[in-house]
Amino acid sequence: MVEPLSDLEAGLLDTQLLSNHIASFGKSRAHSGHQKPDQPARKVDYDKLYSKAGKARQPGALTAVVSAFGDDPDIIGMHGGLPHEEAFPFASFTVGLKDGTRIHIDDPAKVADAQQYNIHVKGYPPLYQWAFDHVQRMHAPPAGQDVMISNGSNHTIEVVTSLLMDRGDSILCEEFTYFYMIDSVVPTRGYKAVPVEVDQFGMSPTALRKVLQDMQRRGEKLPRLLYTVPVGQNPTGAATPGDRKREIYKICQEYEIIVVEDDAYYYLQYPSATGDLPGVAGLGPSYLSLDTDGRVVRLDSFSKLLAPGFRLGWVTADPQLLDKMTMALHASLNGPCSVTQVLLAELMQQWGETGFEAYARRMQGVYRRRAAVLHEAATQELTGLAEWQRPTAGMFLWMKLTTLCDVDEILEQLVQQKVVVLPGRIAHCQGPRTPFACPYIRLSFASASEEDMRTGIKRLANILRSAPPRAC
Amino acid sequence: MVEPLSDLEAGLLDTQLLSNHIASFGKSRAHSGHQKPDQPARKVDYDKLYSKAGKARQPGALTAVVSAFGDDPDIIGMHGGLPHEEAFPFASFTVGLKDGTRIHIDDPAKVADAQQYNIHVKGYPPLYQWAFDHVQRMHAPPAGQDVMISNGSNHTIEVVTSLLMDRGDSILCEEFTYFYMIDSVVPTRGYKAVPVEVDQFGMSPTALRKVLQDMQRRGEKLPRLLYTVPVGQNPTGAATPGDRKREIYKICQEYEIIVVEDDAYYYLQYPSATGDLPGVAGLGPSYLSLDTDGRVVRLDSFSKLLAPGFRLGWVTADPQLLDKMTMALHASLNGPCSVTQVLLAELMQQWGETGFEAYARRMQGVYRRRAAVLHEAATQELTGLAEWQRPTAGMFLWMKLTTLCDVDEILEQLVQQKVVVLPGRIAHCQGPRTPFACPYIRLSFASASEEDMRTGIKRLANILRSAPPRAC
Repeated sequence: MVEPLSDLEAGLLDTQLLSNHIASFGKSRAHSGHQKPDQPARKVDYDKLYSKAGKARQPGALTAVVSAFGDDPDIIGMHGGLPHEEAFPFASFTVGLKDGTRIHIDDPAKVADAQQYNIHVKGYPPLYQWAFDHVQRMHAPPAGQDVMISNGSNHTIEVVTSLLMDRGDSILCEEFTYFYMIDSVVPTRGYKAVPVEVDQFGMSPTALRKVLQDMQRRGEKLPRLLYTVPVGQNPTGAATPGDRKREIYKICQEYEIIVVEDDAYYYLQYPSATGDLPGVAGLGPSYLSLDTDGRVVRLDSFSKLLAPGFRLGWVTADPQLLDKMTMALHASLNGPCSVTQVLLAELMQQWGETGFEAYARRMQGVYRRRAAVLHEAATQELTGLAEWQRPTAGMFLWMKLTTLCDVDEILEQLVQQKVVVLPGRIAHCQGPRTPFACPYIRLSFASASEEDMRTGIKRLANILRSAPPRAC
Repeated sequence: MVEPLSDLEAGLLDTQLLSNHIASFGKSRAHSGHQKPDQPARKVDYDKLYSKAGKARQPGALTAVVSAFGDDPDIIGMHGGLPHEEAFPFASFTVGLKDGTRIHIDDPAKVADAQQYNIHVKGYPPLYQWAFDHVQRMHAPPAGQDVMISNGSNHTIEVVTSLLMDRGDSILCEEFTYFYMIDSVVPTRGYKAVPVEVDQFGMSPTALRKVLQDMQRRGEKLPRLLYTVPVGQNPTGAATPGDRKREIYKICQEYEIIVVEDDAYYYLQYPSATGDLPGVAGLGPSYLSLDTDGRVVRLDSFSKLLAPGFRLGWVTADPQLLDKMTMALHASLNGPCSVTQVLLAELMQQWGETGFEAYARRMQGVYRRRAAVLHEAATQELTGLAEWQRPTAGMFLWMKLTTLCDVDEILEQLVQQKVVVLPGRIAHCQGPRTPFACPYIRLSFASASEEDMRTGIKRLANILRSAPPRAC
């Protein structure tokens, strides 16, 4: 097989970058090589699963030409369109951290890397290396999965679904799910979303099996993908325990389904209301950590833990699929932002795993405190009017308004009272325009001030108290 | 029509951001409003042109909910997933410029914007404003076109084609074109590329008309899009003069074709070998500047002028189409990188148009000098063995090897001699795997050292001299 250079990469390499690149590839190959002895035989053959777009996604034609030149430092490269470093405006980058420390980058090679195209398909090598090592420590992926730096999880969802699904294909989702899937990916790409019931622990394995059996009985084409937000589920806030993940994974093995584990809130877990925070050691098993087959595509994000403005995350997947994913990412975007990749690589180096753990623990504290404010305000004001669970992860509290059939009944009053909540129907995986009565709302405790949260809940309670109760 | 908030945007807004956002929207509406009196009646109705994906791309369901709340500073937002600013790690950003000046950002609002989601669909407002004003000065778009900040032109090409083309639809391209179109967009999305002959001035209007007449005669569905790189064309280096652009535009009016003007090399023009450099005032008319109908989608890029590592560009298009483009960009990517948007906005403010012009002029000098080195080396070594034009724009010299039928004949020697060039067939718009004898190569003078360029050309000449001449 041709080396997985992206077309862009092959096209843009200059001599120095070419040899850097090949050295870095050698390194990542060494990783895979290192794991291979313990690796079970491949259970998923992605070559059999690709969509039309996935099959058409091939290494660029220039790749074969460039590959023929091998790893020779004396190569004269006159084929690419990388701007010369002398064209770049910046000579240094300095970032002040909130703890008073700072990151200063004036090494000309790093400063140039920050301004140059992403020529490394799996990401800026120091950040790739951090992500690779971190994933090993956190999940020890049993099937030798590799990682790549992504442009955030939205784009990765688009890439994975486009490589594995054609128009008309179906995807399993939690009954209420991340509205990006509903409003963007599913309708624009002509997919069908198949809802699976959720409870306070997330997706129900019993419901999943029933959905698949029903589809089989009706002779429908079975879904190829299952999309799940297993921790701090969006919008229900549920965290799926390890045992349930094992059951769901087993069903996916039986039905040959690829699991897309969108775990943006993974680090924001705070299971106990007052006890110790888990840090990064006690976060429980991910689907990836159970994945002996290479059927899990795990999406991690810097957005919820650090800052969404960097537009960076990392993906862990089977190397066969990951090759195509790197091609798709680089073809669409020329890879993620170089400036923020270099900044985050430096930050991760400065922090080490200890600093990363400390930051995660601090964020767990931030969101536990915010969740508690909302939960206590609700307990005080909404008891008897609504039902909910104390959030244990993520940014959302999912609430059933028990005196209503449908949240739409009070939308006008919410506007009058200036309280914005997310009506649950908007997050229903078959689309908000499906007519059904939905008494759920998603309340975010991520960004409103504590005072605003208390006031908002009071106003909601007043509205509910004054709304005539209705039988559904 | 519902306000063009992106789904993401609507979903993530907190109160403060909501009101900022609405204020900024008011502002951009004011722009359009300002131009409307002089604006001719719309010639292109995009509603009739959208693909399946384009039709399905609708404002998010949450948008309608959030819009109902209007622009009230007292709104309590508990609907979104924007992380709280206290979660962000950075307190300041400082960038040292090569000229010794620096940009220092410690205003908490800007520092937060740099780390927050892109909640402004057309881009970070100060950078949007810069791009809007700059486009007015450079192109004075006659049909009231608006702008948005993009994640670079590759992604924009993907967005525009997906909104306007279905599988099986065809797109007109220069016979030799940017290989991203060939290797990525066209095959993975199932489009057909229709080649139009080029000469030293780019796409030929005569050839274009003939292609369309032939398709019509054969009863084929006519192309909806024409993709062109009009300046420093990739790979031929050609710059299309204004008169020719007018002719091509007129044909596109007749056949109701949308023009995608990918003008990444626009600022890198150096028409005379020794005389004055044009700066930004003398760059000649763009397709956009001729566009009375709103049928041109113009892609500008910071990648070739400043640095590709920012992953930023700007797009100018009809507001009707631009609305869908903002939805698609934000759905796929949550918008472009916030950190680099804030940095570039500050840089542009610090430079002003004078500083921008000075930088562009300096880059024109850089690439003219590099082009001259390659052109002179070629003149010395390759006269009688090859034909080419002195480059007047961009980064590439397009060369016909006159003693060969096909560049493949010398690929092995090029590998032995360690000289990498881009074989022309790789850039053929119908794909490099189409069997045809192609004696062209693309030589880049962007990044190799001057010495390497001279050595590379000497080695190429030696190879050509020792290759047996062949009749084709």
